[in-house]
Amino acid sequence: MMQDKQYLMIPGPTPVPPVVMAAMSRPIIGHRTDEFADMHRRIVERLQVVFQTKNEIFVLTHSGTGGMETAIANTVEPGDKVLALVTGNFGERFAKIAREYGADVDEIQFGWGKCVDLKAVEEKLSANSYKLVLSTQNETSTGVTNDIAGIGALVGRTPALLLVDGVSGVGGIEIKMDQWSVDILVTASQKSMMLPPGLAMVAVSPKAWQIIEKNRSPRFYLSLPAARKSYEKWNTAYTPGVSLFAGLDTALDMMMAEGMDNVYARHKLLARAARAAVRALGLELYVPEDSYASPVITAVKSPGGINGDDIRKVLKNEFGVTFAGGQGIMKGKIFRIAHMGFSDKMDIMIAISALEMALARIGHPVELGKGVKAAQQVFLGGNE
Amino acid sequence: MMQDKQYLMIPGPTPVPPVVMAAMSRPIIGHRTDEFADMHRRIVERLQVVFQTKNEIFVLTHSGTGGMETAIANTVEPGDKVLALVTGNFGERFAKIAREYGADVDEIQFGWGKCVDLKAVEEKLSANSYKLVLSTQNETSTGVTNDIAGIGALVGRTPALLLVDGVSGVGGIEIKMDQWSVDILVTASQKSMMLPPGLAMVAVSPKAWQIIEKNRSPRFYLSLPAARKSYEKWNTAYTPGVSLFAGLDTALDMMMAEGMDNVYARHKLLARAARAAVRALGLELYVPEDSYASPVITAVKSPGGINGDDIRKVLKNEFGVTFAGGQGIMKGKIFRIAHMGFSDKMDIMIAISALEMALARIGHPVELGKGVKAAQQVFLGGNE
Repeated sequence: MMQDKQYLMIPGPTPVPPVVMAAMSRPIIGHRTDEFADMHRRIVERLQVVFQTKNEIFVLTHSGTGGMETAIANTVEPGDKVLALVTGNFGERFAKIAREYGADVDEIQFGWGKCVDLKAVEEKLSANSYKLVLSTQNETSTGVTNDIAGIGALVGRTPALLLVDGVSGVGGIEIKMDQWSVDILVTASQKSMMLPPGLAMVAVSPKAWQIIEKNRSPRFYLSLPAARKSYEKWNTAYTPGVSLFAGLDTALDMMMAEGMDNVYARHKLLARAARAAVRALGLELYVPEDSYASPVITAVKSPGGINGDDIRKVLKNEFGVTFAGGQGIMKGKIFRIAHMGFSDKMDIMIAISALEMALARIGHPVELGKGVKAAQQVFLGGNE
Repeated sequence: MMQDKQYLMIPGPTPVPPVVMAAMSRPIIGHRTDEFADMHRRIVERLQVVFQTKNEIFVLTHSGTGGMETAIANTVEPGDKVLALVTGNFGERFAKIAREYGADVDEIQFGWGKCVDLKAVEEKLSANSYKLVLSTQNETSTGVTNDIAGIGALVGRTPALLLVDGVSGVGGIEIKMDQWSVDILVTASQKSMMLPPGLAMVAVSPKAWQIIEKNRSPRFYLSLPAARKSYEKWNTAYTPGVSLFAGLDTALDMMMAEGMDNVYARHKLLARAARAAVRALGLELYVPEDSYASPVITAVKSPGGINGDDIRKVLKNEFGVTFAGGQGIMKGKIFRIAHMGFSDKMDIMIAISALEMALARIGHPVELGKGVKAAQQVFLGGNE
């Protein structure tokens, strides 16, 4: 492979647009300056458009898991009853963090590759009294997007807070924080937001603040009250990643220029093309049901007893293309193609044409060009 | 189209690898320093590997046409007899520059899309006495690569100097300056050398120096004797483009790491795949003959009375892919796909899959995926 000819298609970190890289290469600015405060305000005002919220949004200098822990550390005290809606690896992680802070976690496992079943949630909520409900917007380990609107409608009727891990989805999949009654929404820089890792964004509802202010769990760097105090003057409690803020400022320029509706439509189109291609090649989608398949990542079952990691090795070594492997129980059994953030039609062409060649190289029967054709037809509007 | 999702496939300027961009972003250095001299020496030593020469190579701060004029301005005086071997637009330009300096130019037009016919050259050389012979290594206007070894064998037997425009080819197509009796070889930064425009490289044989030293045509910035004087101390006569030198240093690192044989093989493979795809799609190659088809650019006849520029508009607007149009007499009649410099297999997948979609969009009958398949088969070794 030629140096620098690399196509990163994992669900974070994702490729960063050159214009964002250039913004991050500008001279470092001090964080106690008007210049930083102006940039901070601009960032938050546009994140509110992305999150569809009037709530405060804290841009915190750690990666996505730090954002999830921020949500938990500020709301959970030992013995609190928490309902965790688990659809894969990241749902499990959210529950694990809650347990770490002493929560009594009631975990519903919907099964890998499945989405949250609203009836099961409704039953649990009517039979129990929870302080928190944890859900994952986009489960990257399986390629499932959960119905946050539906979950929010149920949780919003109870005193419980709805905490949503939107790490991989926000910015690529629509979310309406206020309308859907989400109380804490977490995302991170390195997925659909088109930045390198290093920032988490945490939005907090008024209902959540009532719990947060009373919370006595240990928290210092992850303290939301500390963050709120500095936020009033568009400052931060601790030293922020100023280069990443500059990059976020520019990434939001790009997203606003494209228009969020167009951003969401683009991701849906890419997923539709990827899924059409996988089907045309006679491969099996890990999430066969289209209605809750993720717009930002497509998981595919490795065919014919082949270890998915062997396909990934050929893709990487011969074509410079990096897919993600399976996680946890699905290791080696699936591979995952991210089309998240800085991704467009030609990335699907690259992914599918390389996949076809990798399968042929490994000896799996494949009709070259057939998957590409199916994706092309989606792009041309042939099967809309 | 998403911002920054652009695929530039014109024959210069060509895409620049990120590692080269990063090198050019380093702090500017002074040009009268040991640091610059060390870099200059490193650059020339490795350019000698690329040019396959022991001759001095001058890295001059102007673009390719400036390099061609440097070759002419230092060798031509009014009334000099010059033989110009013309196979397209750039061959015509070389002849035009010679006339500008008062040369009596004898021009053989081999026809667009054709290569230099050695028999015609041999006849001219035996019937006339020329001071210079001008040839183009790679004619980007048509996608033809001329047989410089063959031309050099003929010219080397005469007192004439052989001046070769290697602007688009050197670094992507093998050339053996010394063995093939090339007296002045010119290339530029923005083609197969993977840099932005702004540098020309001019290598000069001992036979050429005898003419250059006697030359009395006006030349100051383009003076090779002035360049030679500074070159002895790894300096330059005038202010050099230091950032481009830093980029060239890194581009040469990449080329040496890949190995020049691999670089040349990669370009041949890309051309073979592009040509197989074009044929599979039922389109007509502008240069049907494989033996002199360019390894770095493929010209295609626009099909079915469609103006090639209309195909190019769809490619650019809908897929972010930029092909070159036809030049001169071929404007609107052909389009040209460059696979030059920082280009690899996936770029061919992008070019061909986008071309298929653009043709379908315009209403030209095309079997989607068929061109991609033909290119994939070349990459998999199926029709080697």
